[in-house]
Amino acid sequence: MPRTLTQKIIADHLVAGEMRSGQEISLTIDQTLTQDATGTMAYLQLEAMGVDRVKTDLSVSYVDHNTLQMGFKNPDDHRFLQSVAARYGIVFSPPGTGICHQLHLENFAKPGTTLIGSDSHTPTAGGIGALAMGAGGLSVALAMAGHPYTLPMPKVFRIYLRGRLQGFATAKDIILHLLGELSVKGGVGAVMEYDGPGVATLSVPERATITNMGAELGATGSVFPSDDNTRSFLRSMGREQDFVPLRADEDAVYDREIIIDLDKLEPLVAAPHMPDKVVPVRELAGLKVDQVAIGSCTNSSYADLTQVATIFRGRITAKTTDVLIAPGSRQVLKLLLRNGLLEPIIDAGGRLLECACGPCIGMGGSPCSAGVSVRTFNRNFEGRSATLDAQVYLASPVTAAYCALHGAFTDPATWGTEIIRPDLPQDIPSIRDMFIFPPENGHEVSIVRGPNIVPLETFPPLPDNLTLPVTLKVGDNITTDHILPGGAEITSLRSNIPAISEFVFSRTDKEFVRRARKAKESIIVGGENYGQGSSREHAALAPRHLGIRLVLARSFARIHMANLINFGILPLIFARPDDYDLVAPGSTISLSTGHIQPGQPIPARLDTGTTISLIHELTDKDIAIIRVGGLLNFVKASTS
Amino acid sequence: MPRTLTQKIIADHLVAGEMRSGQEISLTIDQTLTQDATGTMAYLQLEAMGVDRVKTDLSVSYVDHNTLQMGFKNPDDHRFLQSVAARYGIVFSPPGTGICHQLHLENFAKPGTTLIGSDSHTPTAGGIGALAMGAGGLSVALAMAGHPYTLPMPKVFRIYLRGRLQGFATAKDIILHLLGELSVKGGVGAVMEYDGPGVATLSVPERATITNMGAELGATGSVFPSDDNTRSFLRSMGREQDFVPLRADEDAVYDREIIIDLDKLEPLVAAPHMPDKVVPVRELAGLKVDQVAIGSCTNSSYADLTQVATIFRGRITAKTTDVLIAPGSRQVLKLLLRNGLLEPIIDAGGRLLECACGPCIGMGGSPCSAGVSVRTFNRNFEGRSATLDAQVYLASPVTAAYCALHGAFTDPATWGTEIIRPDLPQDIPSIRDMFIFPPENGHEVSIVRGPNIVPLETFPPLPDNLTLPVTLKVGDNITTDHILPGGAEITSLRSNIPAISEFVFSRTDKEFVRRARKAKESIIVGGENYGQGSSREHAALAPRHLGIRLVLARSFARIHMANLINFGILPLIFARPDDYDLVAPGSTISLSTGHIQPGQPIPARLDTGTTISLIHELTDKDIAIIRVGGLLNFVKASTS
Repeated sequence: MPRTLTQKIIADHLVAGEMRSGQEISLTIDQTLTQDATGTMAYLQLEAMGVDRVKTDLSVSYVDHNTLQMGFKNPDDHRFLQSVAARYGIVFSPPGTGICHQLHLENFAKPGTTLIGSDSHTPTAGGIGALAMGAGGLSVALAMAGHPYTLPMPKVFRIYLRGRLQGFATAKDIILHLLGELSVKGGVGAVMEYDGPGVATLSVPERATITNMGAELGATGSVFPSDDNTRSFLRSMGREQDFVPLRADEDAVYDREIIIDLDKLEPLVAAPHMPDKVVPVRELAGLKVDQVAIGSCTNSSYADLTQVATIFRGRITAKTTDVLIAPGSRQVLKLLLRNGLLEPIIDAGGRLLECACGPCIGMGGSPCSAGVSVRTFNRNFEGRSATLDAQVYLASPVTAAYCALHGAFTDPATWGTEIIRPDLPQDIPSIRDMFIFPPENGHEVSIVRGPNIVPLETFPPLPDNLTLPVTLKVGDNITTDHILPGGAEITSLRSNIPAISEFVFSRTDKEFVRRARKAKESIIVGGENYGQGSSREHAALAPRHLGIRLVLARSFARIHMANLINFGILPLIFARPDDYDLVAPGSTISLSTGHIQPGQPIPARLDTGTTISLIHELTDKDIAIIRVGGLLNFVKASTS
Repeated sequence: MPRTLTQKIIADHLVAGEMRSGQEISLTIDQTLTQDATGTMAYLQLEAMGVDRVKTDLSVSYVDHNTLQMGFKNPDDHRFLQSVAARYGIVFSPPGTGICHQLHLENFAKPGTTLIGSDSHTPTAGGIGALAMGAGGLSVALAMAGHPYTLPMPKVFRIYLRGRLQGFATAKDIILHLLGELSVKGGVGAVMEYDGPGVATLSVPERATITNMGAELGATGSVFPSDDNTRSFLRSMGREQDFVPLRADEDAVYDREIIIDLDKLEPLVAAPHMPDKVVPVRELAGLKVDQVAIGSCTNSSYADLTQVATIFRGRITAKTTDVLIAPGSRQVLKLLLRNGLLEPIIDAGGRLLECACGPCIGMGGSPCSAGVSVRTFNRNFEGRSATLDAQVYLASPVTAAYCALHGAFTDPATWGTEIIRPDLPQDIPSIRDMFIFPPENGHEVSIVRGPNIVPLETFPPLPDNLTLPVTLKVGDNITTDHILPGGAEITSLRSNIPAISEFVFSRTDKEFVRRARKAKESIIVGGENYGQGSSREHAALAPRHLGIRLVLARSFARIHMANLINFGILPLIFARPDDYDLVAPGSTISLSTGHIQPGQPIPARLDTGTTISLIHELTDKDIAIIRVGGLLNFVKASTS
């Protein structure tokens, strides 16, 4: 039976399940990556699993999120990550080396392999033909410990590219176009698989821009064929030996097909505050731009910055526009230096920032109040820039560079005829000596734990009967940002669950933490879609630390429900949605948890005497995990 | 009568007073500079003075402190500063252009001129033969408005340099040696005037390293002659026309003379936690170094970084050492680029940070917990790095570079024979187009005020009788950090007095602000040496905002007492120190303020019925200033 490229890679790695979309499948994982904001917790979990050395072909621990080092917490995290990497056989990439996805593409990603990473933009490596997916830190830790990765078999969408980019259109405009077509929910449950004659016109870095922002479609992953361009890229990176050719079978069957004519694309932007609010640049001509920010895992390649340098050469950016530029890696920085391309950027007034995520995740580089910021990044969610009323537009480096020169959006018709499209540079400078490769034997390495690195706590099993008070009742559409806010201060506590737990619901109800601590164990009651938003595990782990045993809601967001299960919190649903109204803050709820079965309702008694019915979506395995106190306990029990 | 160089410059600018040390003198001010952390308040004060355009030859507004932009406050400050500069005829230096003192030396400082700046390291420009002094923001605003600057006539110390630096000793080691000899109080009330045959062996950037750290001696200023080296420096900066020769008269009389034999100096460091705890590097050989940070207004010149690049070339820094490098200006960065000197720094693993103050003021780049950090900066006060238990050593770029390579202090005897001492580069790239020069007519400029820029409030005159409660009683040695703590979060509120006031004494007594607001007007009672530490005006202004009318202490630190007067707070002293014990928190104190006279005690009645006697050190002018509600009101009244 003919197969898509996605199905081929899955078939090569399948250890359990059937390749029918929606069915649970388990895959062996060849490579993992972590970044520092999610990595510290992933490695605390890896430590708790009691393995001696990672079982993957390659695992890399990157530091790119918290590199500002406002106090001891960030550098202590870096030390911890460095020592864990040496201990368990993981490659360590120190702060300043670059952004994980850019570095992984340059140095480690391979066609035909599986990669999971504790960062939602891990699919970037799909640009080189890997099946690369974002996952929770615990999933990544499990993969490092040698467990297969379980997911629903994805659908496969064929994105058929025809023609060739013209004028000032770039790879960024391809993915912005697709976002405009499909919306931010258009890729849910699917892998975006690129195909057609247009593929051969795109270099690997261009493809990576596209696969990177597949995350904004909600896709499980995005993947390009591995072809001559892939071989050229790997050759210029000094690792042609990693090349294997890969493509879909001629008559493979797809779940959906979208055709894009590259010739017809023009420069696009995503307007505030969603990556799918896509409009042509020309429609914004005249809008004043306060800030331009170039970089991020989406658009910080050598080719991207070469285009910027070419546009800037001999010119000066507008005095009313703040221009920030962060190259994606030391390799990019060195290529710019070697080829005289940093000078035009500096001469034009660009502010050179460290090779890191920086402004993309609101770690510095915020715009002024109500400022219009044009960014080559992948997300423009409200407030993500750390300036709550900023108006963030997503664009290509070419569009951003022209905005910087003019201090405003201008019609691309005025930019000239065509942007240069740089060839892949040859004789690439190696930055291999910047990575820290682990010793053969890590037994003698002692893990460095600063005061902010708090060992994982062990949670007890679920008792057979619960009688607990409701310490918080919230409404519909509670996000993980409500549960545990972001920002530099709170994010720096990611490896310190007791400390970060002080911020649970801190912007919603300042007294919640005190009440929960006083109650020792308690219940949260939510409305519809509880836990939507990011995949951060801390939104389950920190409430569990505060003694939350049960979240009772009208409905749950999928990933957050999985996180609740992983950390031993029971996610139950009102059988009759109106019963939500019967539960008051301070109510006590009693239920028997000793005999929960898949598909069977659970009766619960309120302190008013009323009995309500609760339902759930738990599998046998989910129930077993919660019963022993969470996935870590479950894994330890099953491997001992 | 023969004169010192200092006396010559003072005589040229004297408008009032007698040139006898300790006597109050008033000088015309040729140039001013501000940085952003103190500048926003200085310009709010300038606005309040109602002038149309600055009266100085040159005023420059630099942005170098708060450049991380963690949210809207920093970029809003930048916008405000840019618009004020255009409005009032001030040159604006945007974030990323560089550090104020390095930039001022390169672009604007002139031999024989007077310069005051709202930054304690303003004396850096003494390296080019200017009489340059740090001052409060209000003093700088007054100078911009055309008022003379008043100070006690300084003593003059002659620092006589003989011989020539050898081996690995550098200019940094000269000033470290002097700090070891004189201590951090050794220069109080004096100008350090450099003389002797060794002067001609030092370039202007080397001299500037020395005058910069004169601030750590507590000196009013430091000054070098203007000679052939000065002319060469100005020529290479493209402004030979600014050169004038200047030196002390042969038989000038000095208050003190210190001789330094340059030949005998060896690499030195200042050990934690004070710049005068000076020891030879060799004595520390073997001590592991966790971090090296190169840059700051002390040591970020092209020559400094050339030495670092030369040491790094072809080598890699230790994997256990975090190496941060921030060039002092875009000119330095461009010279490094042009001459191929950035590559060896990057290749060695150096993390290139933006041209700004950065780690020196704890704005990022903090060391790990208890980390040993070797820094080319000027201050190693406990906690200044934002890691409270860090062990910070101050050293030259040469010493720092070897620490980075070895991951530890090593004996300079193992470094080789001699460091290169780079010549001044010729054909320096201009960065003049990075500055924003003001329009001829600023009337049409509207000032941009983000929500964090709060207009100055007007304080009412002092009533003739006060009956007020004591809302805070504290002990001895209260610093300005107790009164108003530093740190990125609080510092970002420097232009918002109502908001920053919420942090007054926040680490000492969390309830104080609430009590003070409730009382509307009240009194603080302190012990000995109240208000020691930095010169920050906010430590007077924010308490005044909270209604503090009187600070009653056993004694005051000099600069803070001046700040209290400037903002209309009465600083009174217990005539009998033991009366401190009679006043309890919550006590009410009544006194008549209508007839305060210099040198005369003031009786005050406690609510217990006891009468105590208060004394003060106020001049007639001080009393007049407090009576009208502060210096701004005083100036407005005297110019209207």
